Amino acid sequence: MTYDDNNVFARILRGELPCHKVYEDDETFAFLDIMPRADGHTLVIPKAPSVSIFDTPPDTLCILLRSVQKLAPAVRDAMAAEGILIQQFNEAAAGQMVFHIHFHIVPRWSDVALKPHTGEMEDSEVLEENAGKIRDAIAGT
Amino acid sequence: MTYDDNNVFARILRGELPCHKVYEDDETFAFLDIMPRADGHTLVIPKAPSVSIFDTPPDTLCILLRSVQKLAPAVRDAMAAEGILIQQFNEAAAGQMVFHIHFHIVPRWSDVALKPHTGEMEDSEVLEENAGKIRDAIAGT
Repeated sequence: MTYDDNNVFARILRGELPCHKVYEDDETFAFLDIMPRADGHTLVIPKAPSVSIFDTPPDTLCILLRSVQKLAPAVRDAMAAEGILIQQFNEAAAGQMVFHIHFHIVPRWSDVALKPHTGEMEDSEVLEENAGKIRDAIAGT
Repeated sequence: MTYDDNNVFARILRGELPCHKVYEDDETFAFLDIMPRADGHTLVIPKAPSVSIFDTPPDTLCILLRSVQKLAPAVRDAMAAEGILIQQFNEAAAGQMVFHIHFHIVPRWSDVALKPHTGEMEDSEVLEENAGKIRDAIAGT
């Protein structure tokens, strides 16, 4: 699959679409999933264009994972989660919906079931409140 | 959580327990999940001891992802999958069952549902047949 410059995440990176941003550095960007599978569900993407794990340069993947690893404990702490699920979907058959590689950081609690992958759109105020908690947790680490 | 030297994956790495191995290099090891969520469900682990993403050294995580990235297309091709789901669980509340960090490589097809995370033990002959296909795909790449 060829990378589509107008996919939703490419447009977010260019500032053409809004998002609830939680983190940014020179090479990666993180924001909340607007259809969260749990409160605080965060997406981490590289700024460089790649579709999936199949075409991402290994160095880009390594840099991306450094941000995932930086954000995972911040998301856990911000949301008072008991665990963190990391997911990454490749191709539509695996659940990929936006064809710019992304890692999901999903807070988990033993007594809270995951919402469906393609669930309801979350209220923007709830998303921004959770994004604020995560930004604070990142700033504190 | 402190790393337990007698967890199942530590024992597999020491050769004390059998497994359906598909890949090994100096720093990583891969074998089939014996309770697969899909045919060809593969686990990739570092040889160095870490519990989860929270305590894995960044360089180890990078090395681990290089093997995940090497194996993902091989698993896809070996199993004639349409997509690949990558998962990584941290803490029991997120579904982690063995406390040695591991990435799941799960083949997906649009018309095949995932089996439950803690499903049935697969027949050993089926596992070995799938492991053989994946080893062949790795050798061919």
